[in-house]
This record gives sequence, structure tokens and C-alpha cells, in this order.
Amino acid sequence: MEATPEARVPQKLTGKGQATRARILEHAAALIYTRGVHATNNEQLRRAAGISGSQLNHYFPTKESLVLAVIEWQAERVLTFHRSERFTRFDSLDSLREWADYYIAYEHSYREGCSLGSLASEIIKTDLDVRTELATAFEQWRDVFRDGLERMRRLGRLSAEADPTRLAYLLLSAHQGGTLLAQTARDIAPLENALRAAIDHVRTFAVPPATEGR
Amino acid sequence: MEATPEARVPQKLTGKGQATRARILEHAAALIYTRGVHATNNEQLRRAAGISGSQLNHYFPTKESLVLAVIEWQAERVLTFHRSERFTRFDSLDSLREWADYYIAYEHSYREGCSLGSLASEIIKTDLDVRTELATAFEQWRDVFRDGLERMRRLGRLSAEADPTRLAYLLLSAHQGGTLLAQTARDIAPLENALRAAIDHVRTFAVPPATEGR
Repeated sequence: MEATPEARVPQKLTGKGQATRARILEHAAALIYTRGVHATNNEQLRRAAGISGSQLNHYFPTKESLVLAVIEWQAERVLTFHRSERFTRFDSLDSLREWADYYIAYEHSYREGCSLGSLASEIIKTDLDVRTELATAFEQWRDVFRDGLERMRRLGRLSAEADPTRLAYLLLSAHQGGTLLAQTARDIAPLENALRAAIDHVRTFAVPPATEGR
Repeated sequence: MEATPEARVPQKLTGKGQATRARILEHAAALIYTRGVHATNNEQLRRAAGISGSQLNHYFPTKESLVLAVIEWQAERVLTFHRSERFTRFDSLDSLREWADYYIAYEHSYREGCSLGSLASEIIKTDLDVRTELATAFEQWRDVFRDGLERMRRLGRLSAEADPTRLAYLLLSAHQGGTLLAQTARDIAPLENALRAAIDHVRTFAVPPATEGR
């Protein structure tokens, strides 16, 4: 998944071809995010993207090729967002709080779920051969947190007892699980509680020890 | 969801009718768990349960009625399991560890995911009108943990600073998110790390304070 969606585009595509492909992808991602993979069909996509059936078929000959491209597109977006300056590579508790606040305030969290996780959950049991791509995307997402936690440890902001891998999995799992629960309940409370608790836990390793009320 | 699946069975069913219905349900739950809702069709179910199309139609006239009954069946199973003597109503850290160990050793965790959560994720975006049932099931599951944590606090095993609701959401979210990540990676490590970290966090509220290595 180091390859960006663009890198996977067949080399022969012209600039116009690439733009058309990108437009299809954007609409496919939006439709799949709100309606799910199964309820998204070619006709809706053609109408939304304003393209013909033969155009769609040219760029994405099968549903699998389309879903795979959407996974790459969503993975790229979520990774770019997490790697953005906003979170300063997760080198502090404040950046983790900023991240939690973002998702707690993001109404899609409890309406459509996680753009990548909800897609993963919906298709993981199908015959679509996309599991490896999903697994790689989640690993890279975990690495964003793990690298940040390792940096915090090196900078002396977290004690040597903190296990970056374990804490990274806690943060990502709390996000994925909390989002599913929020989506099911149509209430942000499960996600808010899960993220705050996960960050509370990272905070128990803070140096110097946090002294204000926990 | 206080009503068990049995309570929802139309009163007119004879003993034999109830047995047939239960057999269909058991096979439907197994098929849906391994293949997903979308890949499970009537023909597979008829063959697996050894019933005719008219029998299936008699007990479950629509896919929605079948999926709803499967949700109740899976919710009942997961709640009964969590309320069993094995976990002593989650009144100690040891019972939480016993619970985590169970799921970490349960190979279905990273093959088919959570029996309830994977079903929820797969259908939450569909038109099936089952969201309320899923939300209620997750609330009851959360309550099992919350009640246990409240009991631990009353018994003086956790400090008054522990927030049972927040910790319950952390445990359930770590389980749901960790299971999805494990299933995607086909590796138990994400779930193991998430559950151990969540319990580590509960342990930071232990009374007397845990002194051995964290």
C-alpha cells in the first residue's frame, strides 16, 4: 500500500483518462461509504459520476477492481489525514486528544462509521480478494500511532514501561470498535468513552506523572 | 431483548414446530457467521437444515425476519456466555483476564470475527430494519461489564475514581475493534494487544494499587 492510488493507475492513461478515473473513484467511495458495498450498483455510480457504462467498464472492469481501488483511496485518505501536520506525528498527549476530539465531533462517525473499517467489516466475509490490502492499510494506520508513541518515549514524554505496539493497538481498536458501537446506537457516547479511556491509559505512562485529576 | 428468542416464537407453534424453528435458526446462524449475510441464501439453508422451501417460508417469511431472529439468537448466546458462572459477574480483574484469554485462544476470533459484531457491521448499512435490536444487544453486553466494574468498586477492589461506564465501553470497543483487526490480519495479535491494554487500564484503578510490573 505504499503505492498511492495514482501509482496503480495503468501507465497508458492520459491526463483526461486519469481525471475520469479519479472522478469515478470519488463517487464510488462516497456511495459505498453511505450505502455500503452491496447496495451500490453500476447504475447509481454511472449516474453520480456522469459516465457511460462502457467508460465505467473501461476503468473498472469488475466490482472487485472497483472495491480494491476504493480501499486504496480510503486508506490513502485516512493515512494522509493521520500523517498531517495537525497531529504533529502524534508526538504528544495533546495530539492524541486533538485526534479523539476530531472523531467525536465528526458526525459521520456515528452515521456511516469509519470510512475504512466499515468497508472492511462489510466485505471481509465475501469472496472479494481484498483482505491483504485492508490488512496492510490497518498496519500502516497502527504504525502511525506506534511511531508517535515511540517518539514520545524517546523524547522522555512517556516512561520506558510504555509498550508502543500495545498502546497503538488499543487506540486503533478503541476507534474501530467505538465507531461500530456508535454507529449501531446512533449515539457518539460509545466512541467518546472508548477514545477518552484509551488516551487516559496512554496518560498513565506520562512523564512526569500526570498529577491533575484523571 | 429481555425476551429470549423462544419468547418471540408465535404461541401457536407446537413442540415439533418449535424444534424445527430452532434447527433452522441454528443453521442460519452458523451459515451467516462463516459466510456472511449476503452470501447466505435459502437453498444453502434448506440443505443445511434439511427442510423444504415451504417450511422455511412458514417460519421465516422474509430474509429480514430470519436475520432478526439470528441477531436475537447470537445476542442471547453472547449474553448468556458473559453472564455465566465462569466470569463470576466480572467482579475481579481475574475474571476480566479469564475473559480476554478465552477470546485470544478462540480461533474464530480471527477467522470469522465476533458472532454479533461481524453481523452488525455487515448489515448496519443495509435496508434491513434491525438496528434497534443490535443496539439493544450491545447495550446489554456493555451493562454486563459496567455492572461488574460497579460491583468491584463497591467491594473496594477498584478506586472511586474508576468510571464503570467509560471502562465498560473501553473493554467492549477493544473487543470489537481488536476482533475486526485480527480478522483482517488473520492474526490474533491486534485483539490480544487491545484486550490486554484495556485490562491494564482497569488495573490502574486497582485497590490496593498494583505494585508488580505493569
